[in-house]
Amino acid sequence: MFGARCLLRALRSCSSAPCPRHKPSAKLSVRDALGAQNASGERVNVQGWIRSVRSQKEVLFLHVNDGSSLESLQVVADSSFVSRELAFGSSVEVQGQLVKSLSKRQNVELKAEKIEVVGNCDARAFPFKYKERHPLEYLRQYPHLRCRTNVLGSILRVRSEATAAIHSFFKDRGFVHIHTPVITSNDCEGAGELFQVKPSSKIKVSEENFFNVPVFLTVSGQLHLEVMSGAFTQVFTFGPTFRAENSQSRRHLAEFYMVEAEISFLESLQDLMQVMEGLFKTTTMTVLSNCPEDVELCHKFIAPGQKDRLEHMLKNNFLIISYTEAVEILKQASQNFTFTPKWGADLHTEHEKYLVRHCGDVPVFVINYPLALKPFYMRDNEDSPQHTVAAVDLLVPGVGELFGGSLREERYHFLEQRLARSGLTEAYQWYLDLRRFGSVPHGGFGMGFERYLQCILGIDNIKDVIPFPRFTHSCLL
Amino acid sequence: MFGARCLLRALRSCSSAPCPRHKPSAKLSVRDALGAQNASGERVNVQGWIRSVRSQKEVLFLHVNDGSSLESLQVVADSSFVSRELAFGSSVEVQGQLVKSLSKRQNVELKAEKIEVVGNCDARAFPFKYKERHPLEYLRQYPHLRCRTNVLGSILRVRSEATAAIHSFFKDRGFVHIHTPVITSNDCEGAGELFQVKPSSKIKVSEENFFNVPVFLTVSGQLHLEVMSGAFTQVFTFGPTFRAENSQSRRHLAEFYMVEAEISFLESLQDLMQVMEGLFKTTTMTVLSNCPEDVELCHKFIAPGQKDRLEHMLKNNFLIISYTEAVEILKQASQNFTFTPKWGADLHTEHEKYLVRHCGDVPVFVINYPLALKPFYMRDNEDSPQHTVAAVDLLVPGVGELFGGSLREERYHFLEQRLARSGLTEAYQWYLDLRRFGSVPHGGFGMGFERYLQCILGIDNIKDVIPFPRFTHSCLL
Repeated sequence: MFGARCLLRALRSCSSAPCPRHKPSAKLSVRDALGAQNASGERVNVQGWIRSVRSQKEVLFLHVNDGSSLESLQVVADSSFVSRELAFGSSVEVQGQLVKSLSKRQNVELKAEKIEVVGNCDARAFPFKYKERHPLEYLRQYPHLRCRTNVLGSILRVRSEATAAIHSFFKDRGFVHIHTPVITSNDCEGAGELFQVKPSSKIKVSEENFFNVPVFLTVSGQLHLEVMSGAFTQVFTFGPTFRAENSQSRRHLAEFYMVEAEISFLESLQDLMQVMEGLFKTTTMTVLSNCPEDVELCHKFIAPGQKDRLEHMLKNNFLIISYTEAVEILKQASQNFTFTPKWGADLHTEHEKYLVRHCGDVPVFVINYPLALKPFYMRDNEDSPQHTVAAVDLLVPGVGELFGGSLREERYHFLEQRLARSGLTEAYQWYLDLRRFGSVPHGGFGMGFERYLQCILGIDNIKDVIPFPRFTHSCLL
Repeated sequence: MFGARCLLRALRSCSSAPCPRHKPSAKLSVRDALGAQNASGERVNVQGWIRSVRSQKEVLFLHVNDGSSLESLQVVADSSFVSRELAFGSSVEVQGQLVKSLSKRQNVELKAEKIEVVGNCDARAFPFKYKERHPLEYLRQYPHLRCRTNVLGSILRVRSEATAAIHSFFKDRGFVHIHTPVITSNDCEGAGELFQVKPSSKIKVSEENFFNVPVFLTVSGQLHLEVMSGAFTQVFTFGPTFRAENSQSRRHLAEFYMVEAEISFLESLQDLMQVMEGLFKTTTMTVLSNCPEDVELCHKFIAPGQKDRLEHMLKNNFLIISYTEAVEILKQASQNFTFTPKWGADLHTEHEKYLVRHCGDVPVFVINYPLALKPFYMRDNEDSPQHTVAAVDLLVPGVGELFGGSLREERYHFLEQRLARSGLTEAYQWYLDLRRFGSVPHGGFGMGFERYLQCILGIDNIKDVIPFPRFTHSCLL
């Protein structure tokens, strides 16, 4: 049944050199080929896309990349292989011998015995040009192709490594992973910026009745994690969350990823902040150690100076200031703010930036916010007359708010009163139940994953650290 | 600032025995306490919920569970500790000495020196009764509490382990993890069972204009993964997918998780099936080795016989039959089917069940389905007069279809014609582009994660293997 196909592949081959008889060659990724110790003529088979072509009098040089690493594999062939089809963007399969390279630029290279063009690339229509470094804004227009560039390749490999590192961080510490729901009948933050979900008009169930209640896309898995922390003590989730914010900001998306954790028997914000700092530092160290070239590409070409800034964050302890102290610092600032700093008012981006700079460009935890600013579930500090809650935000250089967290109100009567005041008692009976049946002090946090990537890589626009960005007026693909 | 709180905790303590002076005790999870080798009186501090209370003349026995393992830790205290507050469901903190147990039922136990009730449990209102084994249907009514039972605890720990094992499987083989989008303007399958997404009515952006196009919840990340396999060669995603199916079946949910992979330079269904079988077997072996007690609980109390059935699946090679062979087998069956088997018609659940039984209750791959039954992106086998595509479904005992996959049509002109016939050419220009610029033979698959859990654990209803099930007429919490 695959006969016709094999024939087609054979016809597509552009090799004109006679192919010596040899044992079948091993299929190798570019990464594995590059990492081969003491290459000494092993026969291998490498597949990928051509990143560059250079033809000299007697020799043809190709660079072949398969996305397994930033670096490409140099293929060396004699000039009989030269063909118009061997062009930037074409996919190829190369058989040959892996040998030590004479050049200092690479350790190994592939001496080609057979080169097959698998798929041509229509160079005139291809939006990326050979040897050109396109700006990120330009690449954003081609969400189906930009991953083939060096820079997006590196960013998305880092994203994949960071994802794995985050899972490991929690698993190593005994957290249970929970898939919190995407469709929910709750509105965790009490905010209005929700997406509503309905069956599309083609569905036979009457629209109002699919779930019997109005449902939305989740803005946070926190309340569902609290359910689970009441059984497993330490839990985390890492999934998509949504805001229907009409924002064109470089820090907001309609669909973004959050890492959220919830911990039972947690007594203080100090304990919570320790986990937050640990998550940031451990994940970052793992990423730096597992894909140094990818991180370096970003630091070198996109965010000069970012390497030092990141090292500075990693080697220093994060600072802790109270909201009250933060407001005092802002009041004493010589800078003129658009929003005048005032106790009881929210901190704005301009304030966050100033605070981070003021603290020496080290991440800074701001704790104990006014109760009136925060949602019902945050734990009352009972510190009248100020009246604050045990909330914590982590502000980081370049990005601003990266984490938000709090101790949760575990005391039934405190929570009951707060819910009653917000008119939410009926909707949150189940949440009150968690305090009726073996309640425990607990707390948790959420970290914006895209902002984390922006922070470590120095990427200015959040749209460049997610494979397919969704934001106001844009949902490509 | 936490002064008031510490006082409160002290008052809540029900210990009446004098507390001997000693160095601060180490906080230990129940799992770590149970795993302590050669326990010989170390002072530890364990927190959790009371699973059972037994009071004898001189001694009080408690079993404390914190969700880190199925097994609870036995706490032994003298009768002075007896208190009405030490009841089923209450949360406690116990300080004491970890010692070898005299009983054969456990290796270690905790000799209590101090027991503090952290939160009481209102036993009359608590829906689960001490020592009673509630049916899964009953537990489903309490999505915020059912995770506190042994059975849901075990299932969700297995789910967490399986999630980690799946990530490891792909990472170990060099796959790049991709977050494919949840909100999409595509409709991958061409099916009509979609959820539509709009900003809730409170949002100021006019409803039609938020994304400028109608958007839906994803039914599959495949097309987006194909974009990425064109850069990274091997990619996978593991996230939520959605169907607005009006179904009350024990195998369908409106929101469920899919593991999807896409592989470039893949030449045959055989290579694809090898990855599928590898994923199933490797993940299952890891789960069996990392949480044997949790799996055993399900096999023992919920699905007797499942242990043997699973071993049978693991030790045998999965079978491969063609769709055409499958139809012949069904035609020759002595069984009467509701839907008469016929070449060109879909296989129904009754057919799938028969085929799996016929093949000796081993998972069976069915390959090469009629082109007319399958979506535009599946690779044409060019085997007229039958005209099939290189599609593959994996059928497993008890569950039916677990995986679906195919080679994708990588040939520009074939794909162009298929799209034109479906009137989709304009919408899928970007997808055609992938074939214009360095196209490669490739293929991929999706595995329903909840069905996978049903299959290995022997859980009959899909609603019991996901933390918060969403289905027609139900979206609790």
